[in-house]
Amino acid sequence: MSKPLILVSNDDGYNAKGISKLIDLVKPYGDVVVVAPEKGESGMSHAITIKRPLRLTKISEETNLRIYSCSGTPVDSVKLALNQLLDRKPDILVSGINHGSNASISVIYSGTMGAAIEGCFNGIPSIGFSVCDHDKDADFDLAVKYSKIIFEDVLKNKLPKGICLNVNYPVIDINKVKGIKICKQTNGVWKEEFDKRTDPYGQNYYWLTGSFKNAEPDNTNTDEWALANNYVAVVPIKVNLTADNFIDKLNNRLND
Amino acid sequence: MSKPLILVSNDDGYNAKGISKLIDLVKPYGDVVVVAPEKGESGMSHAITIKRPLRLTKISEETNLRIYSCSGTPVDSVKLALNQLLDRKPDILVSGINHGSNASISVIYSGTMGAAIEGCFNGIPSIGFSVCDHDKDADFDLAVKYSKIIFEDVLKNKLPKGICLNVNYPVIDINKVKGIKICKQTNGVWKEEFDKRTDPYGQNYYWLTGSFKNAEPDNTNTDEWALANNYVAVVPIKVNLTADNFIDKLNNRLND
Repeated sequence: MSKPLILVSNDDGYNAKGISKLIDLVKPYGDVVVVAPEKGESGMSHAITIKRPLRLTKISEETNLRIYSCSGTPVDSVKLALNQLLDRKPDILVSGINHGSNASISVIYSGTMGAAIEGCFNGIPSIGFSVCDHDKDADFDLAVKYSKIIFEDVLKNKLPKGICLNVNYPVIDINKVKGIKICKQTNGVWKEEFDKRTDPYGQNYYWLTGSFKNAEPDNTNTDEWALANNYVAVVPIKVNLTADNFIDKLNNRLND
Repeated sequence: MSKPLILVSNDDGYNAKGISKLIDLVKPYGDVVVVAPEKGESGMSHAITIKRPLRLTKISEETNLRIYSCSGTPVDSVKLALNQLLDRKPDILVSGINHGSNASISVIYSGTMGAAIEGCFNGIPSIGFSVCDHDKDADFDLAVKYSKIIFEDVLKNKLPKGICLNVNYPVIDINKVKGIKICKQTNGVWKEEFDKRTDPYGQNYYWLTGSFKNAEPDNTNTDEWALANNYVAVVPIKVNLTADNFIDKLNNRLND
């Protein structure tokens, strides 16, 4: 039996600290192919590049490990890997380890999770990992310890069709972590998000900024609660967004 | 009681034919504010702009209608509208009418639906409309007829928290349409997606292309089936992606 084929991507770029930690973690388990953006692509969600062509650049090749950069988004990177580089479907896709939280609704803005969702569309067990620390030198010890546990489980037991995992790590001492909590995506919204400034020519411009407003801070089943209470937060994510329980009611409204 | 406040966006740009049809449709119902990308932003999904500042440009102003262009993505446009332009929450958000299908998994790649999902995060009843025709001169008669019905229903009856609508129109004669079908997002994947070329300097580059592979072509409850059978396809979309029914099983796997 051939060794597992492991596809790695992220949204911080192929040379970020987080992805190097993830590569080191998965390398002992099989053949590893890395395709990740050539520069930071945070906040790119599931964006694809359709108005300009894409480039793939081989960065390095050694036994069981090839690393490529892609001029496009995280999702472009996964698509190029699957369609142009790999001769078979990967056994698993891992994305990250992202510098910054992708908990709650950030799952939808996240390029890291975009890559994982693209893997899931293609029937590949896929996981996005993130530490709640944007620093380029963030500490990954806790993330590496638990990512290994989760990676091994998914490599062995797979994931149900149409479901991938969004894993987030709190910023705490590794000895203080209480364990893994399987949770729901927290309901909430980003608020007051622009810093308005005037350029040297008298024109206004806006920097996107803001703070997350948790709509259910006391819900102990949510990922934000888990992170605030020193748990590793794991949310299983469905890529079919249908609100099944509203179909009949909407039908009554529109087809009466 | 004040007139309804209606926010309009899209991903084809503020001057696309589809959005002008949508503006004409909603104008009689209230105060309309349009904030849409200054150029085409198809395939931008839920992307946000965090590494460069954004610009807003007033294009026109008349009674009950203000139109702005935004230098960023559809989601940036909605965020700027809500945070910088509007003094109260819109009663409804409409996005489109998109040139091109956003049925099935395209809901996740779509900037048009990105705008609708952002509205939904903010508690605004939100709808994305799309015709299955990329042509810039696409015919919108069928879309306008049914968008009016759906818009009036949602303006009156709202939508449940966390649910928005993804509406797609088949490319058929308006007299052949069989009606509105409330459906599920079709499961499937985009396959064989790159056109590999060589530039004048001998380097490879790739154009993203491909075809949709329907994983359930005989499922009459799906949006792809509805469109292929001359129905208007309406899918209610959840913005909380949690796969609730996998939480216990995953907990057994990771916390045994």
